[in-house]
Amino acid sequence: MATESTNKMSAYMDNAASTRPDPRVVEAMTPYIGEIYANPSGLHSPGQRVKAAVEEARTQVAELIGAAPEEIIFTASGSEANNLAIKGLSAAKAKKGRHIVVSAIEHFSVLQAAKRLADDGWEVSYVPVDEDGLVDPGAVEAALREDTVLVSIMHANGEVGTIEPIPAIAKIVKERGIAFHTDAVATAGTIPVAVDELGVDALSLSANQFHGPAGAGALYVRKRTRLHPLIDGGIQEGGRRAGTENVAAIVGLGKAAELAKAEMAERSEKMAGLRDRLITGLTGAIDRSTLNGHPTERLPGNVHLRIEYIEGESMLIMLDMGGIAAASGSACTSRALKASHVLTAMGVPQEKIHGSLLFSLSRNNTQEEVDYVIKTLPPIVERLRAMSPLAHDAAAQGA
Amino acid sequence: MATESTNKMSAYMDNAASTRPDPRVVEAMTPYIGEIYANPSGLHSPGQRVKAAVEEARTQVAELIGAAPEEIIFTASGSEANNLAIKGLSAAKAKKGRHIVVSAIEHFSVLQAAKRLADDGWEVSYVPVDEDGLVDPGAVEAALREDTVLVSIMHANGEVGTIEPIPAIAKIVKERGIAFHTDAVATAGTIPVAVDELGVDALSLSANQFHGPAGAGALYVRKRTRLHPLIDGGIQEGGRRAGTENVAAIVGLGKAAELAKAEMAERSEKMAGLRDRLITGLTGAIDRSTLNGHPTERLPGNVHLRIEYIEGESMLIMLDMGGIAAASGSACTSRALKASHVLTAMGVPQEKIHGSLLFSLSRNNTQEEVDYVIKTLPPIVERLRAMSPLAHDAAAQGA
Repeated sequence: MATESTNKMSAYMDNAASTRPDPRVVEAMTPYIGEIYANPSGLHSPGQRVKAAVEEARTQVAELIGAAPEEIIFTASGSEANNLAIKGLSAAKAKKGRHIVVSAIEHFSVLQAAKRLADDGWEVSYVPVDEDGLVDPGAVEAALREDTVLVSIMHANGEVGTIEPIPAIAKIVKERGIAFHTDAVATAGTIPVAVDELGVDALSLSANQFHGPAGAGALYVRKRTRLHPLIDGGIQEGGRRAGTENVAAIVGLGKAAELAKAEMAERSEKMAGLRDRLITGLTGAIDRSTLNGHPTERLPGNVHLRIEYIEGESMLIMLDMGGIAAASGSACTSRALKASHVLTAMGVPQEKIHGSLLFSLSRNNTQEEVDYVIKTLPPIVERLRAMSPLAHDAAAQGA
Repeated sequence: MATESTNKMSAYMDNAASTRPDPRVVEAMTPYIGEIYANPSGLHSPGQRVKAAVEEARTQVAELIGAAPEEIIFTASGSEANNLAIKGLSAAKAKKGRHIVVSAIEHFSVLQAAKRLADDGWEVSYVPVDEDGLVDPGAVEAALREDTVLVSIMHANGEVGTIEPIPAIAKIVKERGIAFHTDAVATAGTIPVAVDELGVDALSLSANQFHGPAGAGALYVRKRTRLHPLIDGGIQEGGRRAGTENVAAIVGLGKAAELAKAEMAERSEKMAGLRDRLITGLTGAIDRSTLNGHPTERLPGNVHLRIEYIEGESMLIMLDMGGIAAASGSACTSRALKASHVLTAMGVPQEKIHGSLLFSLSRNNTQEEVDYVIKTLPPIVERLRAMSPLAHDAAAQGA
């Protein structure tokens, strides 16, 4: 590994975990880190100026997704937004019924929130996906019951990159008068997201997915949709989320939303080009490597590969020595080193799941970086396979 | 008001709502706003470096309150920490009983969280306070029942400044084997807070109270104390609080904790001196003005006055024209303009509650600012009273 470890080249391709904040976002945030510090609830001029900055950001976020500003609740993360949606929407409708529907490949902040409801006596139905990670709208329809009060299906899966047919699903759900939430953390700010076109009642997003800061998320909640707060207390966010506002993070989210809206087409085109170059380059150079997720209904920055006979973690360590930051799945569960529930739901056999590798691109990545990865990974795979008993067994069996 | 509005002097005295981040805190945070952005859960070198920064901050916060680093859960606010404590500790013990005890003067993030439990079928007992805002440990003892699973009494009330006798209360509660939480948002980083000396199982704090950033709080939870998460999902914070970490805010909280620990005695002495000068100056110059809260068991920066026959909001507006930022009560409820539940619990008649004014000092305030307020407020009071029918009625009655 001497050549890799002394190589000056590096490539950050773990953007699904966190993107780099845009310098223009950092610039917008900077005054609010130090010199402008009043509490926006303050009944004085400094407080009112800060309040105005928060409300400007609310408008910027609303405009990104075609919502009204008063439909935006700021949170500290996409996970908080998902918890607020799952727990808050269901609690507000508990008298109508205690059944919810989610897909099997939701983010853990949806699945674990649903499990919390199940622990409290709710019933949760899990809709399966096909081998590309697609949810069948008919399967959602089949899961609906008289007592169903909430359905939550993600807009796209950040791990395998598959984009779900949300408008078709939402139509079925809304015809029954059931609340519909989508986790758009992987899509908002990256591909077009419009709440009316999607047909959703609630939608989660996170700034760190589109070159905004960490610590800034939002939940869109359609007007007249009842919701119980997750964090009770003060009057912030219309009484729907207590706690002094993280103004710097909110201003950063707003600026990132404004920039994402203006530059989306250009960014997306660049990312998709790099993505396709990386997929072609790696699957062409590495024997027994497959793309996970849908081939076309796919996030522009997602390259999720299954490389047989080796462990994703071993590849990550060796890539890291070469200055390449990648992932094996969701950052939120990475250190647990468990088999991905997403790949399991897609029917990937357990022994093949562990060879998963996720390169998630942003608009900051370059062709040079992509080519560097295409050059670096194949010898790593070769070396690991040479040490792998699994690969030897397979070769012996002529597999 | 011509002299005030053209005066160049100003004084920020709403530190209970938010303190100014220390420049050294801002400096520590700055790299994490932009250039260092990896997700601390990432299994690569950039992620591991960020993870180390988060863990250093955890140690700094633990050292401020005499805890172990693994007992610290980072949150996005004091309100979130309070909600996590009230809901999370009680949910983990629901099988043992469904009764909790809080004081009547808790912050709304405790009271509303308790109300949420009550809506879910729990019973909540509210312990009263005396006219100084003090909780009687005997009253807490009297409220305990066989099925009590949690008691939460704040360390100090940020509105009226009274510091509660937590060690005596905790002793009684712990002898019964009941979990004890204290909201130390108003005290941690300002006066000594040591979890073992206080005798608590859980304790909330917030960085923006001691010159750290907004958006950064923490909940201390004693080892082996079970807690259900408020935000379910990923493995962050030992599985007790999901969501990508707001690393900049966490690093800022850590640095603020380190500085507060080192400089506490000096800051506190300065604040108490300014506080006493302000109290003496204002109550001496303004007829029918009284200090709310305990005269000696008092936060070093708290000056909470009751000024009869006028409205706090009118004074705030005129003070603001003079460049003085103050408050009438808690920032978290300020815009609701409701009568303070704290003063109501202290037995202050409703008609006198509305004349409340809170000047909350920090180490950044100066004697010059204090003297400016002492000079500015009395003519404002005089002018407002001249317009007030309440004051005329009282004068006519020889009151």
